[in-house]
Amino acid sequence: MYIPTYEDMVAAHERVKPYVHKTPVLTSSFLNQLTGAELFFKCENFQKAGAFKVRGACNAVFGLSEEMAKKGVATHSSGNHALSLSYAAGRRGIPCHVVMPRTAPQAKKDAVIGYGGVITECEPSTSSREAVFAEVQAETGAEFVHPYNDHRVIAGQGTCSRELHDQVHDLDAVVAPIGGGGMVSGTCLTLSHIAPKTKIYAAEPLNADDAARSFRAGHIIADDAPDTIADGLKVPLKDLTWHFVSNHVTDILTATEEEIVDAMKLIWKRMKIVMEPSSAVPLATILKNRDVFAGKRVGVIITGGNVDLDNLPWMNS
Amino acid sequence: MYIPTYEDMVAAHERVKPYVHKTPVLTSSFLNQLTGAELFFKCENFQKAGAFKVRGACNAVFGLSEEMAKKGVATHSSGNHALSLSYAAGRRGIPCHVVMPRTAPQAKKDAVIGYGGVITECEPSTSSREAVFAEVQAETGAEFVHPYNDHRVIAGQGTCSRELHDQVHDLDAVVAPIGGGGMVSGTCLTLSHIAPKTKIYAAEPLNADDAARSFRAGHIIADDAPDTIADGLKVPLKDLTWHFVSNHVTDILTATEEEIVDAMKLIWKRMKIVMEPSSAVPLATILKNRDVFAGKRVGVIITGGNVDLDNLPWMNS
Repeated sequence: MYIPTYEDMVAAHERVKPYVHKTPVLTSSFLNQLTGAELFFKCENFQKAGAFKVRGACNAVFGLSEEMAKKGVATHSSGNHALSLSYAAGRRGIPCHVVMPRTAPQAKKDAVIGYGGVITECEPSTSSREAVFAEVQAETGAEFVHPYNDHRVIAGQGTCSRELHDQVHDLDAVVAPIGGGGMVSGTCLTLSHIAPKTKIYAAEPLNADDAARSFRAGHIIADDAPDTIADGLKVPLKDLTWHFVSNHVTDILTATEEEIVDAMKLIWKRMKIVMEPSSAVPLATILKNRDVFAGKRVGVIITGGNVDLDNLPWMNS
Repeated sequence: MYIPTYEDMVAAHERVKPYVHKTPVLTSSFLNQLTGAELFFKCENFQKAGAFKVRGACNAVFGLSEEMAKKGVATHSSGNHALSLSYAAGRRGIPCHVVMPRTAPQAKKDAVIGYGGVITECEPSTSSREAVFAEVQAETGAEFVHPYNDHRVIAGQGTCSRELHDQVHDLDAVVAPIGGGGMVSGTCLTLSHIAPKTKIYAAEPLNADDAARSFRAGHIIADDAPDTIADGLKVPLKDLTWHFVSNHVTDILTATEEEIVDAMKLIWKRMKIVMEPSSAVPLATILKNRDVFAGKRVGVIITGGNVDLDNLPWMNS
């Protein structure tokens, strides 16, 4: 297991700069008043392909040798990594094969196809996903880029908090959503080096709280097919992300489905930005842990904005 | 009739600066490709109180003498001017009386109350609105701040395109939605002075095309209670806004309800911003008048973001 270094993140930043946005940091006086904290929202919903995942995907794709690149790349993903890898492969002009759960939002499937990715569907469980993927990879010989348990991907995701650190000084804490742990690992990689006093919190849906339970148990616990509207956060930790989470994260906080939807609507209504349910989990946990964050300067990672406008969470209730 | 001057706009800018945001200009490579134009979106959906109208409202409220201010301000409005005047009055600590159609979105009514405004409801027609308002004003003695046919308001709205002109050089055209014509008049006031080569287009719902018909007829035509999802654009031109529209606007373009909703979804989906149906009318007209805008650098005013998330236009279809 190769653990990516700070220097890998710096190299990744140079490599991905031509293909990703330096996303803006937004603030809201209303939400500051509501939480008692000073919140700085790093808006990766405005990122290319609509999510932070394009950082790791571009680092992996543009780091390949010419010979490796010819056969293309392949992955399995609950959505945003699929879009991002398709986008990155398209920019380099190489094939991208994607295994996606058949239950993934249609908007995400359409976007993958729009970026030139080729989709093979699987059942919405980790076990089915991995089985179908093995077939696809055997057929194509494409380079596997795991959505998060990959040192190239983690180094790429780390570029997000490097930008945030440039944009906002003296953060007391950063809160990021956790699924497989790619964004949180990248945040740990970068901030443990350049801002070791900044505490890193992970925010997770209570309905998919395997990372929180892992954190308390001291070893990885994986659930097969948890059910949450935060569809980007259903996947379990793996060895590489567990390394960062177990070594650098201060706490993993959870929120219910209702709290996530409420936080999402609050951000849409007050900040006028479109973002995914997954991206609302940090604010949901900040709202219910006022004592932890009040009086602090807190970075909040808005991870993505690829939502199906015809199927918003509050349309079903 | 006092016609506001460029100097009035400059004074307004100094007066409102402490209370309004210099809003960002966003771009979208996808929408540029789709339209063949270079589009620069001036995002007043991120403005205080969620719309450009706070510029004119603040200019009126903070320009009052101490004695006039004591009795407060009053207005009738289909929504955003009501929020904005309530916000401005709240910042100065004076009362704000608002006459609103009973059919206005609940989200806007709640927000007016949230900013401390006092609402009196009327029927959703221009005639009812004006009758109810006369009663309120007689009772309170508050200073009337018309939503658009007011030189202080127009001078305030003109600060928006002054910022845009600072942010983006050499615009060939600016497209703004037109209802009563306050934003368009402010745009004319400013750009005719500092960028006389920039053409000004107004964009209007076909279902409420009284301004377009006025423009072709050469005199004001007013409809009572037109029906469009662009609820900010139902009101007619008045003498002061007609002055600017008839003297400085190049053309008034229209779009159907379906075209407006499609443009709105496209902006939400691709730009990840929450904005109102009214704000989508410019893009809708640009998409259907490709020959007018292709190859040009075009400013697009996103006028506001106060939408009712529980009642989005595509939820009803």
